Amino acid sequence: MASLSSIRIEHGEASRDPRASALRALAMDAVQQANSGHPGAPMGMAEMAVALWGSHLKHNPANPGWIDRDRFVLSNGHASMLLYALLHLTGYDLPVEELKRFRQLHSRTPGHPERGITPGVETTTGPLGQGITNAVGMALAEKRLAVEFNRPGHTVIDHHTYVFLGDGCLMEGISQEAISLAGVWQLDKLVALYDDNGISIDGPVQGWFRDDTPARFRACGWDVIGPLDGHDIGAVEAAIAQARRGRGKPTLIVCRTTIGAGSPGRAGTARAHGEPLGADEIAATREALGWFHPPFELPDDARAAWDARQPGEQAEARWQARFDAYRAAHPELAAELQRRMAGTLPTDWDALRAAVVDHEAARADDVATRKASQQVLAQLAPELPEMFGGSADLTGSNLTDFPDAGARHLSYGVREFGMAAVMNGMALHGGFIPYGGTFLTFSDYSRNAIRMAALMKLRVIHVFTHDSIGLGEDGPTHQSVEHAASLRLIPNLAVWRPCDPAETAVAWTEALAAATQPSALLLSRQALPTQARSAEQVAAIARGGYVLVEDDAAQATVLATGSEVGLAMRARQLLAERGVPVRVVSIPGSTRFDRQDRAYREQVLGALPRFGVEAGVTAWWGQYGCVAALGVDSFGESAPAADVFAHFGLTPQALADRIQETLGA
Amino acid sequence: MASLSSIRIEHGEASRDPRASALRALAMDAVQQANSGHPGAPMGMAEMAVALWGSHLKHNPANPGWIDRDRFVLSNGHASMLLYALLHLTGYDLPVEELKRFRQLHSRTPGHPERGITPGVETTTGPLGQGITNAVGMALAEKRLAVEFNRPGHTVIDHHTYVFLGDGCLMEGISQEAISLAGVWQLDKLVALYDDNGISIDGPVQGWFRDDTPARFRACGWDVIGPLDGHDIGAVEAAIAQARRGRGKPTLIVCRTTIGAGSPGRAGTARAHGEPLGADEIAATREALGWFHPPFELPDDARAAWDARQPGEQAEARWQARFDAYRAAHPELAAELQRRMAGTLPTDWDALRAAVVDHEAARADDVATRKASQQVLAQLAPELPEMFGGSADLTGSNLTDFPDAGARHLSYGVREFGMAAVMNGMALHGGFIPYGGTFLTFSDYSRNAIRMAALMKLRVIHVFTHDSIGLGEDGPTHQSVEHAASLRLIPNLAVWRPCDPAETAVAWTEALAAATQPSALLLSRQALPTQARSAEQVAAIARGGYVLVEDDAAQATVLATGSEVGLAMRARQLLAERGVPVRVVSIPGSTRFDRQDRAYREQVLGALPRFGVEAGVTAWWGQYGCVAALGVDSFGESAPAADVFAHFGLTPQALADRIQETLGA
Repeated sequence: MASLSSIRIEHGEASRDPRASALRALAMDAVQQANSGHPGAPMGMAEMAVALWGSHLKHNPANPGWIDRDRFVLSNGHASMLLYALLHLTGYDLPVEELKRFRQLHSRTPGHPERGITPGVETTTGPLGQGITNAVGMALAEKRLAVEFNRPGHTVIDHHTYVFLGDGCLMEGISQEAISLAGVWQLDKLVALYDDNGISIDGPVQGWFRDDTPARFRACGWDVIGPLDGHDIGAVEAAIAQARRGRGKPTLIVCRTTIGAGSPGRAGTARAHGEPLGADEIAATREALGWFHPPFELPDDARAAWDARQPGEQAEARWQARFDAYRAAHPELAAELQRRMAGTLPTDWDALRAAVVDHEAARADDVATRKASQQVLAQLAPELPEMFGGSADLTGSNLTDFPDAGARHLSYGVREFGMAAVMNGMALHGGFIPYGGTFLTFSDYSRNAIRMAALMKLRVIHVFTHDSIGLGEDGPTHQSVEHAASLRLIPNLAVWRPCDPAETAVAWTEALAAATQPSALLLSRQALPTQARSAEQVAAIARGGYVLVEDDAAQATVLATGSEVGLAMRARQLLAERGVPVRVVSIPGSTRFDRQDRAYREQVLGALPRFGVEAGVTAWWGQYGCVAALGVDSFGESAPAADVFAHFGLTPQALADRIQETLGA
Repeated sequence: MASLSSIRIEHGEASRDPRASALRALAMDAVQQANSGHPGAPMGMAEMAVALWGSHLKHNPANPGWIDRDRFVLSNGHASMLLYALLHLTGYDLPVEELKRFRQLHSRTPGHPERGITPGVETTTGPLGQGITNAVGMALAEKRLAVEFNRPGHTVIDHHTYVFLGDGCLMEGISQEAISLAGVWQLDKLVALYDDNGISIDGPVQGWFRDDTPARFRACGWDVIGPLDGHDIGAVEAAIAQARRGRGKPTLIVCRTTIGAGSPGRAGTARAHGEPLGADEIAATREALGWFHPPFELPDDARAAWDARQPGEQAEARWQARFDAYRAAHPELAAELQRRMAGTLPTDWDALRAAVVDHEAARADDVATRKASQQVLAQLAPELPEMFGGSADLTGSNLTDFPDAGARHLSYGVREFGMAAVMNGMALHGGFIPYGGTFLTFSDYSRNAIRMAALMKLRVIHVFTHDSIGLGEDGPTHQSVEHAASLRLIPNLAVWRPCDPAETAVAWTEALAAATQPSALLLSRQALPTQARSAEQVAAIARGGYVLVEDDAAQATVLATGSEVGLAMRARQLLAERGVPVRVVSIPGSTRFDRQDRAYREQVLGALPRFGVEAGVTAWWGQYGCVAALGVDSFGESAPAADVFAHFGLTPQALADRIQETLGA
């Protein structure tokens, strides 16, 4: 391996354009200062960045929130110093002091770009392949919003989404899901620039990556420009201009580059990828570039050439004039667009929420919670036009659609990971609250995108149906056992496992109201008994856990979630007949419950011996101090659901026996 | 959505070949009997199956373990009844009674094919895209074994790997990783037959899947035959024959088929996919096929035409004669091949294991556990030629290579999921113990393949380095926080998080010895203090948890794993100075420890107040009854590792303070 990474790949040479040299210098100096990071990609993409950010990108450094700005995604997020240099140089609120604190605690320049930390960073990237997929979601959002809000003579949504990506993104499978969807959706305002440098961490990619990438993209409905010399600023500028004229297809521009271009000793080698150049090589690079300014210092002409504040202000002013005219002609649309982009719920939200919850709480029929979810959707979606649904080819099973959904419900195909990362992109763009369905087990496929949503604080809602062994005949490959417990471990992810329509309604409304948090709704395939509740109990559902049945004579507390709440209630009945009264606590949202004050939690959980029941791994109950737990600590079985529950001893009888036995009652 | 799924796609018509009719009848009747399952795909692929299984597949129903058999993978696993029908008809130990018990508890015919349940099922499929990737691993194993073991005049390893797959597999991103690798590796004995029926669950695929699939495969180095009429047995037979003659490239055969072919009312519709046809439609189908035999009954000529027992026996006998000649000429090679395929470790394994563990236990220098892992590999790999390593483009970081690894270490490119599923395929084929590396955080990408290995009981070893916030500057996208706890929830997955070379050596040797279990080794980026141990303590490591420091005067027990064992030891020192002695327990392998007898566990955990420390989510400690736990319950931070540990209060001082405070000591 070591020998491979020392092989040099030659594609092209660094320009001496001062704008490009400024990027290279900042990147290599910041990495050196941090003694950590990736100089090779920023140096290799310097001219691509000049071409895009210097000539095409529509943005206003003074207002990173301008809704009609172009979106830029650095899918190869390890090239973060390129983006920080661009943001600094074009005039965002990112002073040079922050560049000097690259990769230091609480700086605005973390190792990989993080949304919310750095003004101008549109999405958090690093886990490869997801940035390009986020970009597909952004471009989809732009396209849908334009259809919804533009009017004849009034074009207020009209921007491009640009992506830089490397071969790492293209090796990741999710990129195939992304490019396939972008092709189907004809996202012609999506322009991807491929940093084709022939090098990945293990060395020249020929040993593990020989795809004909242009042919692959063409096969998926893309226009492809190039390969061209990625160090030729004019060539890249022209290619972007051509891509912007394209109609009906997204465009890939293949830019042949040299990783670490400008560094005499490291250019074209894997060593350039992930280690500082070192003082000597930095000096040699300065020499080679004819760039003799000290670290972090730039000549005025380079600064002036990069400064985008004035053109940015003018660009937004032109748009603002158009928007003012639009508002004059269509005041309600304009207000609605602003509301949607701000991510605030409609003013009547509280009333809507209460109405939906009350409506579901009043139901008496027993339905599957996936069906309850669809009932809730049918009430919420018409009132919340920002809700944008979909399913990874399981619409009829996930029940994610709603009456007259039309273009507001998408079939993503069998692409769980892609769906999740596209939804992240839509949420990042703004204007939508995306939700999407698949079976809970396949949350494994999308897991890292769920994590990224949690890290980025995005309001994205995952509808995971068929949430346990209750799925039945499809068997262990499709039966989630560890997934509920495992999702609850992801920081800032709200996980709801409701037991009936009332809890499902609360789960949905809480998910919609959680503006800085993704949510996962774990829903049953099978019908579940609907529980009776007082108004106080209905109100308590939103606390994540509450007493469903209190009993002053109780000898134990049964904690249950989702489909096992009904089981616990039936066990309670059996135990009552045996003279062993128990309380029952429902915990539909443990991630919410765990954040309640201690007094409330202790009151709910109670001081009696606790028994947990959930059709999944029992280790999870440890944190609630259960003396025993019923669950499933192995993989499932293929059989009708009732048989599987019986096989695993998840029956009212078994639970009652276990409690009685443990209590010695 | 509903309207889409009723649109009919016309490609071709069912033949009246009695072998095909037998498959269709068994599939629709078994699904009907179960009142659950997928009739459409088996009926659509009936002629493809006749072409492959009737004319090409080299197998012996009496010996599903014949090492030189062709491998057949049903990547679209929901078509399980096709495979069960084939196994039954060709003569495997799968009587018709089992077909009648399709999808019933403890039948040999679960909803999706499961390895180990049904003789002749080569891999468990259902989660789409993984079957084709397993097949790539099988074909890779065949190719490598052939190079290793065949000798001039003696060809003992020479078989094909065939795959059936559908559009669902092709939509999943992992398929891109698979086909890209198959192209790079030039797996010319891999033949994939694409059931191109234009329908997925949500309806005709044109709304979400418009890839030019032949062009996509060609772009990745495949030969492509077709599209051809997948109901034309002769055409498919000829295509397979052509594919078998191919050199240097894997082959895709595009078979245009009609889902549910043979069913007058359901053929070509999404309804055919996942619901029983119903009695009336089954009758109509019998009429249309001219097949008037009762359910599960077959005419003698169809049975005879399918019976593969005699040709299978002859095929294996011919191979056996070749193998006997090989054994005569190369007795040691023959024995070694048989050992490798049986999956037994070398006879000197116990001595080797002991030597490696003792060697590492004797070390005194402080190294990262990823480095300790490489030290262990350097000792084990030369003695275990079945070990087959790799990394998802992080070789120099994961340190998965070993001296003179040569072709025994692969760069998989940035394809974590693909790597994991390829490794599963290699393990399924036999002859190898695959292991592969990436950062722990990216276990998210490969998670479902890890789960599948656990479900299939495969000896596959995941080397997950950079296992916590100790990764440092790369920041929260790369810092695992919930991953250790989350992997431990997967049934039958061994998870090891060693603290130094001795524990790392035990983790590796236990992983290698676990023939029916995958293992995940969670290793640090940063150097960790090496601990001193008695021989008894070294022996106890394999129990997964043990007392590292006993203290009769102790006031508390500190439980720690991996990089936090050293932290616990330093806290112990501080506490000793403050007059608060504590015991320290190391739990490198909680999944192992949890299976020890109760007495041992209680002795190790002790009756004193317990404090847990691990640089990850603290909820995990609940099951060990800890009174307090130090960890990280939010996402990480980008900064040098020491700064991140300090930021999260994971220091000896903080732990000592917390213990002292809680004890009131």
